[in-house]
Amino acid sequence: MAEQISPSAELALFAAGLRYEQIPADVLRRTEDLMLDWFGSALAGKGARPVESIERFARQMGGDGPAEVLISRRRTTPLFAAMVNAAASHFIEQDDVHNGSVFHPAAVVFPPVLAVAQALGSSGRDVLVAAVAGYEVGIRVGEFLGRSHYRVFHTTGTAGSIAAAVAVGSLLKLNAEQMQDAIGSAGTQAAGLWEFLRDAADSKQLHTAHAAGSGLTAAYLAKDGFKGARQILEGAKGMAAGMSSDADVTRLTDGLLTRWAVAEVSFKYHASCRHTHPAADALLQVMRQHDLAPAQIASVVTHVHQGAIDVLGPVVDPVTVHQAKFSMGTVLGLVAVHGSASVADFEASFKSSEVVAFRNKVSMQLDAEVDGAYPARWIGKVEVKTLDGRLLHGRVDEPKGDPGNSLNREEIEQKVLRLAQFSQGASTQEMRSACDAVWQIERNDKIGYLLPQAAV
Amino acid sequence: MAEQISPSAELALFAAGLRYEQIPADVLRRTEDLMLDWFGSALAGKGARPVESIERFARQMGGDGPAEVLISRRRTTPLFAAMVNAAASHFIEQDDVHNGSVFHPAAVVFPPVLAVAQALGSSGRDVLVAAVAGYEVGIRVGEFLGRSHYRVFHTTGTAGSIAAAVAVGSLLKLNAEQMQDAIGSAGTQAAGLWEFLRDAADSKQLHTAHAAGSGLTAAYLAKDGFKGARQILEGAKGMAAGMSSDADVTRLTDGLLTRWAVAEVSFKYHASCRHTHPAADALLQVMRQHDLAPAQIASVVTHVHQGAIDVLGPVVDPVTVHQAKFSMGTVLGLVAVHGSASVADFEASFKSSEVVAFRNKVSMQLDAEVDGAYPARWIGKVEVKTLDGRLLHGRVDEPKGDPGNSLNREEIEQKVLRLAQFSQGASTQEMRSACDAVWQIERNDKIGYLLPQAAV
Repeated sequence: MAEQISPSAELALFAAGLRYEQIPADVLRRTEDLMLDWFGSALAGKGARPVESIERFARQMGGDGPAEVLISRRRTTPLFAAMVNAAASHFIEQDDVHNGSVFHPAAVVFPPVLAVAQALGSSGRDVLVAAVAGYEVGIRVGEFLGRSHYRVFHTTGTAGSIAAAVAVGSLLKLNAEQMQDAIGSAGTQAAGLWEFLRDAADSKQLHTAHAAGSGLTAAYLAKDGFKGARQILEGAKGMAAGMSSDADVTRLTDGLLTRWAVAEVSFKYHASCRHTHPAADALLQVMRQHDLAPAQIASVVTHVHQGAIDVLGPVVDPVTVHQAKFSMGTVLGLVAVHGSASVADFEASFKSSEVVAFRNKVSMQLDAEVDGAYPARWIGKVEVKTLDGRLLHGRVDEPKGDPGNSLNREEIEQKVLRLAQFSQGASTQEMRSACDAVWQIERNDKIGYLLPQAAV
Repeated sequence: MAEQISPSAELALFAAGLRYEQIPADVLRRTEDLMLDWFGSALAGKGARPVESIERFARQMGGDGPAEVLISRRRTTPLFAAMVNAAASHFIEQDDVHNGSVFHPAAVVFPPVLAVAQALGSSGRDVLVAAVAGYEVGIRVGEFLGRSHYRVFHTTGTAGSIAAAVAVGSLLKLNAEQMQDAIGSAGTQAAGLWEFLRDAADSKQLHTAHAAGSGLTAAYLAKDGFKGARQILEGAKGMAAGMSSDADVTRLTDGLLTRWAVAEVSFKYHASCRHTHPAADALLQVMRQHDLAPAQIASVVTHVHQGAIDVLGPVVDPVTVHQAKFSMGTVLGLVAVHGSASVADFEASFKSSEVVAFRNKVSMQLDAEVDGAYPARWIGKVEVKTLDGRLLHGRVDEPKGDPGNSLNREEIEQKVLRLAQFSQGASTQEMRSACDAVWQIERNDKIGYLLPQAAV
């Protein structure tokens, strides 16, 4: 007779038991795509003040080790490599996102996976399995914790600890009981509050570093016999009890081994707030279809969900690049004038007279259909009036980067090349070789380094 | 005109501005008492499985450094020394407690203070000021978060991050703005759930290690310019918003510089759950007053608060030392038979026939007066029936160790000597010299080490 097991136990069983052979080939390829995409985001954090702060702290507290810090190219212990790379990954806001859980998996999964794999000499297949385990579990924990959690807590920080623990636990070959210990010890360290947003403080980078570090710690301790709570997620004094009022326990184990959440993850194509992407793509569609120049356009009305108005509405006249990424008009101005809204486009042109002129033609309007579909689907609808009096309509049902309209490998390579160039994180030649390493990862018996070590 | 500042800003201003000269002499002496008391608890964690696990992890991830790990006598970086010493401090359940906030300050304040002071070469006075700052702020944060928080969250873990950040921030000489950053970065990492209790998992040690480590991290980052949320405690998406339903913001700044919360902290005298202490003291009073031997006693009814019944009620026939510490009958049996309930008494005698025989004579009864006074006061009342038919009453209004019935320095020395002997953490001679170092700390221009270094 099958014994009834708890959702936490079932998740642990899944994560500890997951084998390469169980994962469909297209999910494995997508995981490679996400890994390369992550690598670009991590490099793009180089030079950012809060990220470099965390790197200096790591230098002060850690020692030498086998794991690479991407932004400095030094080698340290897995804990600190995971923390610094995680901090770096989330800075430029170009890392991946799972729509339904509003969770950014790459930033908290790949840093600990790469660091621990380098320390253990894991195979490329082990790396892919570990990443898939982390994504699958982390996304489900985010969905489980729900919207009430996300209102106050930064899900990438909280669910991120669990995702990191599971991914590292997979590399450490934890058995199901140890994996449950790791989840318990990660969940009891899970943290991350949105309060910092009001002050534009640096906590976002700390959240991903903390998630990666605390999750890795939990997994190493579990391997050493350190016991964790058996039901830290759904228990009476667990995460949901303390940090959510609408937790849905059925989401924790939804479709394990049949539904691959990793394949539902979106890439960020434009270097701006995701709420601007659907409209930007719809505008590009209209302009291409009708061969319009920006100067021919009189006005653009974007039909959006309420969340977009809440987040983007206050940004009228952005004065920094970061603010400009939350300006619908600026983003549409950049894609209209330059055909793209990349990190470099923002740096060079967010205040250019052409872009500002276009920005002032753009407005937002709440749309019942778009709002009703959100967050499961992010529909983009625009109404473009031309100076010669035409009224043109654009519509995309899945913005560029969403699973149904994903980036191909060429586009991902272009994106990460741009990011590395932007931060001067790596040369084109180094990036080509890193791209090859990721595309070949499955055939690699012992994972190596993505970048050459700094001269000591 | 004075500008209105937020409670978080006021706390930061207090912590950054606190000077040795502002602290009354008796509060400084009490802080030394608490430091020595803590040292004993930290040593007592030596050899405990979960503590040694955290020490092994620290060894794997950290490097050499200037800060001492008490249980292994090796020297590492402040982060890891703080984490391991914090894990060790909370294991034997003999560390101090602040009744009103149900917060154990020593375990999360002294470990980061000692580690960072050793790294910086701070003076003894700086150490005392830092510890007082940590206690004052941590206790107020615990009071602020309230009972609803404590129902799910382990306040020593959550408020502990803030306490550790403030204490380290004081040593790092953060200005008020940086101190507020440190509080912000600590609060957004604050964590610790009671879920582990149900499984007797090891999370309690992880909570103190995490609090010490995350608080220290927050303070170092703040010194480096890393920005934190300005109102992580009381803000709309801060700690109280996410983790409490009865937060009282007035408690955050209650009596700063006039009410010294550090002087309200209780020492644990018996090596058992604090809920057993009032009755144990009341029983000792009756037995001494009437010169009773255990065999002369027919029954003992303890008059207790509901919390004691909730926690101790289920423990009827304890099979481990840890369980026995939650058995009212066993604790009363030990003090009746041996005159004390020390760690050694528990190890040697919790299952002895004499103690078990006495245990079976003990019962608990809810008492309206005792329950009404709790948790502000922990009253002990017992009714003792003798075999020769007498009915005797014992009562203590403040159990041994509470502020009004505190331990003198001789008693604290005896306690820490017993703890060190118990875990074989240090020799009597080493302990004498550590005691002297703490009693002399105020005159020490550069804090040294409490124990000799292990031979490498």
